Amino acid sequence: MIDTLAVVGATGAVGRIVLDQILQRKLPHGRLKLLASARSAGQVVTFGDQQITVELMEPSAFDGVDVVIASTPDEVSAEFAPWAVERGAIVVDESGYWRMDPKVPLIIPEVNASAIDNHQGIIASPNCSTTQMVVALAPLHNAARIKRVVVSTYQATSGAGLAGEAELMHSTRGSLDGSAPAAKTFQYPIAFNLIPQIGSEKHEGYTSEEMKMVYETRKIFGDDSIDVCPTCVRVPVAIGHSESILVETEKPLTVEQARELFANADGVTLIDDLAGRQYPMPVDSAGKDDVFVGRVRKDLSSPNGIAFWCVSDNLRKGAATNAVQIAELLAKKMASVA
Amino acid sequence: MIDTLAVVGATGAVGRIVLDQILQRKLPHGRLKLLASARSAGQVVTFGDQQITVELMEPSAFDGVDVVIASTPDEVSAEFAPWAVERGAIVVDESGYWRMDPKVPLIIPEVNASAIDNHQGIIASPNCSTTQMVVALAPLHNAARIKRVVVSTYQATSGAGLAGEAELMHSTRGSLDGSAPAAKTFQYPIAFNLIPQIGSEKHEGYTSEEMKMVYETRKIFGDDSIDVCPTCVRVPVAIGHSESILVETEKPLTVEQARELFANADGVTLIDDLAGRQYPMPVDSAGKDDVFVGRVRKDLSSPNGIAFWCVSDNLRKGAATNAVQIAELLAKKMASVA
Repeated sequence: MIDTLAVVGATGAVGRIVLDQILQRKLPHGRLKLLASARSAGQVVTFGDQQITVELMEPSAFDGVDVVIASTPDEVSAEFAPWAVERGAIVVDESGYWRMDPKVPLIIPEVNASAIDNHQGIIASPNCSTTQMVVALAPLHNAARIKRVVVSTYQATSGAGLAGEAELMHSTRGSLDGSAPAAKTFQYPIAFNLIPQIGSEKHEGYTSEEMKMVYETRKIFGDDSIDVCPTCVRVPVAIGHSESILVETEKPLTVEQARELFANADGVTLIDDLAGRQYPMPVDSAGKDDVFVGRVRKDLSSPNGIAFWCVSDNLRKGAATNAVQIAELLAKKMASVA
Repeated sequence: MIDTLAVVGATGAVGRIVLDQILQRKLPHGRLKLLASARSAGQVVTFGDQQITVELMEPSAFDGVDVVIASTPDEVSAEFAPWAVERGAIVVDESGYWRMDPKVPLIIPEVNASAIDNHQGIIASPNCSTTQMVVALAPLHNAARIKRVVVSTYQATSGAGLAGEAELMHSTRGSLDGSAPAAKTFQYPIAFNLIPQIGSEKHEGYTSEEMKMVYETRKIFGDDSIDVCPTCVRVPVAIGHSESILVETEKPLTVEQARELFANADGVTLIDDLAGRQYPMPVDSAGKDDVFVGRVRKDLSSPNGIAFWCVSDNLRKGAATNAVQIAELLAKKMASVA
């Protein structure tokens, strides 16, 4: 039981789903506070049969708060998280700001729940493209140890928030109507286009989004020897990130073994029948919490490789659902202590 | 000089561009015949300042024809190509039907023009996703010998012809208007979606489109030791296939060497400045003949790997332009014999 729970960024694309998940998953909590910056403070948000007014996020707003679930930009998290921790709250943070801090556990409950024991007030939830990949890779890693991952992503516009989702629709209507398609949230018009850049240049020609997939994967698995070569691409899809993944393992896996590992893994649903035209697609993943895996096959280019296709709702398991699952772990710990 | 040139399938998505390219590239030819099945015969097509009536494609239509450029489905090509060859014509064929026939050269003029000498009446142009990849890989192969390619494609709907292009627009309007998005040409609605299947199941979980990339790449390079692991995905883009490619070479290449090889390669344009937000995108490639390469970087997961992003107009270099370039080689041979 979490006595006082605060949700930061409740009016955003992910925050709305955090509230939805708190209700649906019945996260045990007492009082619920909603906090936001001055731009959104004062808004009234529906939560079940309650109407809750969003309060201004200032240091004293965290007085008496036990757990915070936050979906904010990095720079906002950098500012507020210390306010909350100083007042004794535990922050479950979805921003990228704290993830690689050695004092901050980076948690996917299906994969490394026990890492939560070492937190010092802040627990990070991984980047959306990392989360779904690692959920899918975990059963293969446990069975055969992953050495190398080559991944190309097909990322939805909602990864850039409500503005990204809106811009896809706006830009597409503009393109169909023959007017100039908009490009404010994204670098270029996304209508009927692909943009092979997510984030800014970070490391030797790789973007920040790509390097998150490298560093976060290693941290979650606790194995710095795993090599990841990522290519992150924005596609004109509203919700649901997709990934083409090739994984090389230390021990060989047959396709049948890989399929069985996926089928039995926590949080994974296997949809894999090419002849029957069954495979995961983003429109089908929207609004669902699982990571969907299909197109499982032997790599044609290495002895110990498995290729597969992985789709998940980037706002749910990629963000809100994972954060609420981390809060569930905290609620359980609080219950066992109490 | 080609005395009598016939274009088969001139009313299709690729055929229209074949006519355009014959004009633009000034393919030396005398009489031009347009041929099609009963469904399109009788249509009048504009070619420069001429109006040409499409004739019915029957065996005798190839009497006196020297060179045929054909863009038809596989089963149509299987039927008409022997008619043409029996009458002494040379067929440049864009269908998949003849490509892997050992008696048929599979040609990309920038890569293996000399293979044309061994034709026996039919010369095949490769699959669109193979062509752009091989054009980009050729300079790396010549410099450092390619051992392995991992490729994930992002393929435009025009790869399925005019019907595919139209279905993207129709399906997208339907999705925006809240009506059910259409799915006739594609297995599922393509609006704001991805379909990880192009073609039918061919080999151990790989589709026919994917296996084309494996077999055709080896045949064009004349090197069966090259391993290719492909994933082919349809994306909601009208024109321009994109590919995320990782290549491992026998000899190591630095990023600078790879960039210089791309920059100097026939048919390749390098657009590579991530910090300046410059990289190839499908909307920019539409209507152009080159293969565009960007995002060149060291593979983070192998010592001799280079990762890059490759975009090209699938109707042009991926189909019409390559076929007209093959016809240019034939015209040159005819000129040197005459």
